[in-house]
Amino acid sequence: MKKPVPCKIVEQAARKKLEERGVTIKDIASIVFDLQRPYYPSIQMEECIESTDAVLCKREIQHAILVGIELDELAEKKQLSEPLQSLVESDEGLFGVDETIALGSVFGFGSIAVTTFGYLDKQKVGIIKELDERKPQIHTFLDDLVSSIAASAAARIAHRLRDRDENRRLDEIKKRETEDLIG
Amino acid sequence: MKKPVPCKIVEQAARKKLEERGVTIKDIASIVFDLQRPYYPSIQMEECIESTDAVLCKREIQHAILVGIELDELAEKKQLSEPLQSLVESDEGLFGVDETIALGSVFGFGSIAVTTFGYLDKQKVGIIKELDERKPQIHTFLDDLVSSIAASAAARIAHRLRDRDENRRLDEIKKRETEDLIG
Amino acid sequence: MKKPVPCKIVEQAARKKLEERGVTIKDIASIVFDLQRPYYPSIQMEECIESTDAVLCKREIQHAILVGIELDELAEKKQLSEPLQSLVESDEGLFGVDETIALGSVFGFGSIAVTTFGYLDKQKVGIIKELDERKPQIHTFLDDLVSSIAASAAARIAHRLRDRDENRRLDEIKKRETEDLIG
Amino acid sequence: MKKPVPCKIVEQAARKKLEERGVTIKDIASIVFDLQRPYYPSIQMEECIESTDAVLCKREIQHAILVGIELDELAEKKQLSEPLQSLVESDEGLFGVDETIALGSVFGFGSIAVTTFGYLDKQKVGIIKELDERKPQIHTFLDDLVSSIAASAAARIAHRLRDRDENRRLDEIKKRETEDLIG
Repeated sequence: MKKPVPCKIVEQAARKKLEERGVTIKDIASIVFDLQRPYYPSIQMEECIESTDAVLCKREIQHAILVGIELDELAEKKQLSEPLQSLVESDEGLFGVDETIALGSVFGFGSIAVTTFGYLDKQKVGIIKELDERKPQIHTFLDDLVSSIAASAAARIAHRLRDRDENRRLDEIKKRETEDLIG
Repeated sequence: MKKPVPCKIVEQAARKKLEERGVTIKDIASIVFDLQRPYYPSIQMEECIESTDAVLCKREIQHAILVGIELDELAEKKQLSEPLQSLVESDEGLFGVDETIALGSVFGFGSIAVTTFGYLDKQKVGIIKELDERKPQIHTFLDDLVSSIAASAAARIAHRLRDRDENRRLDEIKKRETEDLIG
Repeated sequence: MKKPVPCKIVEQAARKKLEERGVTIKDIASIVFDLQRPYYPSIQMEECIESTDAVLCKREIQHAILVGIELDELAEKKQLSEPLQSLVESDEGLFGVDETIALGSVFGFGSIAVTTFGYLDKQKVGIIKELDERKPQIHTFLDDLVSSIAASAAARIAHRLRDRDENRRLDEIKKRETEDLIG
Repeated sequence: MKKPVPCKIVEQAARKKLEERGVTIKDIASIVFDLQRPYYPSIQMEECIESTDAVLCKREIQHAILVGIELDELAEKKQLSEPLQSLVESDEGLFGVDETIALGSVFGFGSIAVTTFGYLDKQKVGIIKELDERKPQIHTFLDDLVSSIAASAAARIAHRLRDRDENRRLDEIKKRETEDLIG
């Protein structure tokens, strides 16, 4: 059997592809920031960047990025066979493989990530909208991948915020208990 | 083995439960209408009602309705054990079983239905919003079920519209071909 | 806007691709037959063929077939960029985009289809096993697509069998009622 | 707004419920052990126990356990309304809400977890089979939850094993490189 591709290579390739296609971690983190601010007013960009970066460490999203961007690029070079070439080129509303691939990696962050993905897919904010307008480039798969990463990173923050809140609360309870004991 | 519950009984029970909890087919069809009008300006309410009704004929959504509304009602009567009682009562953001159950039946209508479900879950329009405000009733599961039915019915119309368009086009092509032959 | 690709063209292309890659409807129907026989001993191959054919009429699976087989063929011709080329070529256990794409179309047939898909994916029976052994061809995506079609067709038969049973039962009830009235 | 239920409380309740219904972490870990041994012959029970335990730390599975076992228990006490009572009691093949709830938490561990879940759901090994036979208890939801936890824990080990392998390999590469430099 052939040796498997080292994960490091896969991760570096996925990150490089994203950048080459004009999407930075900061672009995605901006969407995360806007998504989470209503629930978490003191959120900082650093936290959104950190969370986006953590999502990109997951195998499922790395593989999805490699497959999706490959198909976008092949479509740009007119190297897909027909009728797939036309389907990808025109990003038809009923062609759903792009959403399916993106959904595959969003599930990992809970159902809150799935609904956020659906919302972003309809609303097309920030870089997702820009990608849509960068003609004649083809971003049929990439815009869904970006929605997926942003939705996952936002859900990840929501989960962690909750954990943090509770640890603080537990700490307060413990502190009080200790004081009670001392008192 | 016990005889299985006849599907007719299941379907009638699911439809009755929806109505008892204050959700009519027309309420759901209104959401479908608003969702589809931008893409299909001549859409009629009748078509939305017909599509909503067709979605309710599916086993997966009927079962989801029976389970979801049962849990809402048990929570209202304070008959769930703790901590589930508190989780359902407060409809916590990180409690996702309501979305998971609703998602299970939305998948049947393609990825376009999944993303529309996510959108409705965030935007909370029409009856979905009303349910949210009908305190002290508990609609933790029902609002997701309504989003699921509306998203499925809208996706169903999108798929059928496309089929209809193409049959018309095929008919036109055939007509032209016949005329060419005659001419 | 470009005119969308007619569905007929998409369907014909998907069916042709399957055949070109050495998978017939009968191959898939054989798996369906073996899956359903334990629950439905009088099942006939005709019904399995009809159900497999009906699954292939669905847009979601047609799109999945076109994307999946394209990636298999590109990998065979060494035309994917690295490291995707190596990932697809070696069909690594942790590369899951093939399952994700196949899962996307299996959801439409209920959760019974999803679990059957998982079972076939592990057990690799019939043509699924053969594909695995037809080296040096690459069938990383195709074997999952075949599992998806077979699982969907089997679930479809299970649902219809139930409907048929119940109509018969309802007919019997009605007949009895009519006889009661006459008698 | 009511204060949310502390996660610790949710986690403890979920673990207690599992135990009360006769399922220990060791029971689940045994399934994980059998699943992974073919791919990883030197696997130890400790690792399977640790992985099962880690899966139980996730919110999604905790919520699924609380909802699923509640429904099983209510059905045992005949406290569900009809026809849901009969559907859950008889664990009908076409009733899929049990699988849907279990699937919701399995997605988090990649598509390999989803297919393993489907396999376990069909094969019913170990404690999953026992649950099926412990009549007159009702385990319609619990057997799927156990399959979900075992599938997730097995997938988690597969992913970690790979990471470990690669770090070893990277270490070896580095060691060689250092030796080259020294040499």
